[in-house]
Amino acid sequence: MDFESFRAEVKRVVSGDKVIESRGELMLYSYDASPAESAIPRMVIQPETTNEVSEVIKLANEYLIPIVPSSGRTSLHGGPIPYNGAVVLDLMRMNKVLEVNLEDSYVHVEVGVRLDELNAELARHGHFFPPDPASSTAATVGGSLANGAGGMRGAKYGTVKDWVLGAEVVLPTGEPVFMGCRTLKCRAGYDLLSLVIGSEGTLGVITNAYLKIWPLPEAIVRLRVYFRDVVDAARAVGMIKARGFRPLIVEFLDRGTMEAVSGYVKEFTYPRDSEAMLIIDLDGPPEAMKRYIDSMVNILKGAGGYEIEWTGDKDEMDRIYMARRAAYPALLRLFSGMRVMPEDISVPPSRLPEAVKGIGSIASKYGLKIVTWGHVGDGNLHPNIIYNPNDQSSVSKLYSVSRELGLMAINLGGTVSSEHGIGVLKKDLLTSELEVKGIAQLRLMKAIKRVFDPNNILNPGKVIDID
Amino acid sequence: MDFESFRAEVKRVVSGDKVIESRGELMLYSYDASPAESAIPRMVIQPETTNEVSEVIKLANEYLIPIVPSSGRTSLHGGPIPYNGAVVLDLMRMNKVLEVNLEDSYVHVEVGVRLDELNAELARHGHFFPPDPASSTAATVGGSLANGAGGMRGAKYGTVKDWVLGAEVVLPTGEPVFMGCRTLKCRAGYDLLSLVIGSEGTLGVITNAYLKIWPLPEAIVRLRVYFRDVVDAARAVGMIKARGFRPLIVEFLDRGTMEAVSGYVKEFTYPRDSEAMLIIDLDGPPEAMKRYIDSMVNILKGAGGYEIEWTGDKDEMDRIYMARRAAYPALLRLFSGMRVMPEDISVPPSRLPEAVKGIGSIASKYGLKIVTWGHVGDGNLHPNIIYNPNDQSSVSKLYSVSRELGLMAINLGGTVSSEHGIGVLKKDLLTSELEVKGIAQLRLMKAIKRVFDPNNILNPGKVIDID
Repeated sequence: MDFESFRAEVKRVVSGDKVIESRGELMLYSYDASPAESAIPRMVIQPETTNEVSEVIKLANEYLIPIVPSSGRTSLHGGPIPYNGAVVLDLMRMNKVLEVNLEDSYVHVEVGVRLDELNAELARHGHFFPPDPASSTAATVGGSLANGAGGMRGAKYGTVKDWVLGAEVVLPTGEPVFMGCRTLKCRAGYDLLSLVIGSEGTLGVITNAYLKIWPLPEAIVRLRVYFRDVVDAARAVGMIKARGFRPLIVEFLDRGTMEAVSGYVKEFTYPRDSEAMLIIDLDGPPEAMKRYIDSMVNILKGAGGYEIEWTGDKDEMDRIYMARRAAYPALLRLFSGMRVMPEDISVPPSRLPEAVKGIGSIASKYGLKIVTWGHVGDGNLHPNIIYNPNDQSSVSKLYSVSRELGLMAINLGGTVSSEHGIGVLKKDLLTSELEVKGIAQLRLMKAIKRVFDPNNILNPGKVIDID
Repeated sequence: MDFESFRAEVKRVVSGDKVIESRGELMLYSYDASPAESAIPRMVIQPETTNEVSEVIKLANEYLIPIVPSSGRTSLHGGPIPYNGAVVLDLMRMNKVLEVNLEDSYVHVEVGVRLDELNAELARHGHFFPPDPASSTAATVGGSLANGAGGMRGAKYGTVKDWVLGAEVVLPTGEPVFMGCRTLKCRAGYDLLSLVIGSEGTLGVITNAYLKIWPLPEAIVRLRVYFRDVVDAARAVGMIKARGFRPLIVEFLDRGTMEAVSGYVKEFTYPRDSEAMLIIDLDGPPEAMKRYIDSMVNILKGAGGYEIEWTGDKDEMDRIYMARRAAYPALLRLFSGMRVMPEDISVPPSRLPEAVKGIGSIASKYGLKIVTWGHVGDGNLHPNIIYNPNDQSSVSKLYSVSRELGLMAINLGGTVSSEHGIGVLKKDLLTSELEVKGIAQLRLMKAIKRVFDPNNILNPGKVIDID
């Protein structure tokens, strides 16, 4: 690996203002939003076209320089951290919405566009792109596709893999290809597109994509309900689904979350005897909302819910949602000097009661505070582990707690990572999950990585180790 | 390859009544529903458990015997035909619905269950599995997953890949693994499940699956409309989508289809000046249907539609749909002695006007009759080519027409196969599509096949040739 020659060649294929080498600026690419160890890249390249991405990757493949694709850097598991002198490929300059096509129900977009910007543009046309990770103000289309992002609307609308029709992908050899189609029905051989989605930039670099879009809901009504027993709240989720509801969102907040928020936002109060809260958005045509609400209120009462409130007023809806929006900053404030590691397990919704009990047991066992919220419509829980980054014993407990939460999810028929990805922090847990599901799959994944990337230059060491 | 030893070993791992060797019965496995050349298998094995499938495949891998998975045999491109002395693995005995779980919104089902049986069971619980290939009375869960089946509801609900959460898959080495999850959110490493879905049994044999289920529509209203110009009908589809409608179905029938049906079903009449017909199902809560219908009627009138009729009455709906249901048998009757090859292209809906014109030009060029219907909500057209199987020139024109239709779809930004698969008949067209989209993908697909199936024992020669 002759870095100086690579460096000179890169400057021949992209103009000098697209190459960053100052230490101060490189530092900005040394971490993501996770507790994973940071690492400073050797160089950052900011291509503007697929052709530039292709040329740079060809060079990297020739000179055997590791390349780490990067955009919003909101990853929560270390995916975009440039270890071992890697070069970062920053895709944020590829930030154009190329085409909104309502007749064909897609938007063609470059990967550097942020999700909120995309949805602002689509809203002007009465449409939206459903996946909505909490970081959507900063998260990009590219990062979301690479990470298999989900969000609150996942129980109704799935994750990004359900919303991408086709994409331009630069392979680790530098070859640009178009994977998938521009239609929903697409049988173009083996589904390579789905393999690249969620591969965290280890199999190819997506430069632009055709995303499926959907008409905005005609009306939304938001309900809020409290429960005296956290298990009742968890059980309510299964009852809602069994009755044929597919709410736009079902957000769960445990008592710890409510406590934190009430100390942070003075307008927020909650009944002293409540152990959990659900926020439920129902969507549909306005003519049907009254009936939907009545039916939902009945289900919630039957599940032990109380102080049920509902509204279709935008400001009132924002007020209810404040509890959820303020949760993360509230935690940071309440536990100042500490850090928060947001975990990301899923279990089938019917197993949520066991999962919330299990989280409590694990917190007690290790003496670390865990505050839990989640997108429970699909059984997705975010147990937030509070730890002291300056206390080695606290950090070591953090990793034990994270591991036990993952093992619990596996035991309950769930998964260790729902929407945050594997990165570097969850590789061991992924192996544990595959040991239960069939470890032959790990062999196949390693072989697939070698097929795509024989020189292991694209985001090496992420998702899986190829040995 | 020592077939006698394989045969003896098979009879040790599955009981004798699960092995078919009589020529009469073997004949039934020699063809599918396509014009592809038939071939008689050397043996048919009917396993009842994943373990039996695993044992048989282990033996096949050891003795290098080609194995062709099979179920409903409704394939339209030769996928399940056992060439070169292959053994058929008939999965129809694995026909149990294992679990309907409403709380977790899935059904766990063995692959031999037919789609209509599955939906009859789900309907008892107020739910359904949306993919609905035309052959759903005979087509199975396994065949649908292996073929990436779609159907009429595809424009709203996508294809099987959007409806499978996880599956038990026996790898070509005989190892059983569980791919995917039981939740929508699932980040268990690279998405091997999506790779196996649509791989036509070349990468693994699915034995049971967790399928996502959805609440039945609260109400459905069916509209029927005629157009004097086929291009207007095609254009209406884009207008419907652009206005934010996602109809449950949008079926297109050209004049040739209406002519055939009117000769077959005497109750069916159509205006003499109409060149095309659309059947549109709108679904939603009953309270909103009137408004939806009014809006849809306005769109259709604006697009040049006339004699618009709509109904929510079950019998009336069946009457309207009769035109579509009777289309295939009507063709067979009208052109007796001839055969019908149902093609399966998709184009982005905005390109439908060009596609329907193009089909007319191709039919004229070769002098073969083409009668077209399709699930046009997603741009999926089925141009049905009428040919004489006993006339070599007609058969040779059939393949030329099929090829030109595929190339036209590629030129219009579409795809050569939407829901019928590649099998043996579309391998060349797949290559043509990948030449446009990036031929490096074919290299990757071949390498992936070798990774999964190093001995090339699983449905060899289908989808792609590995050289």
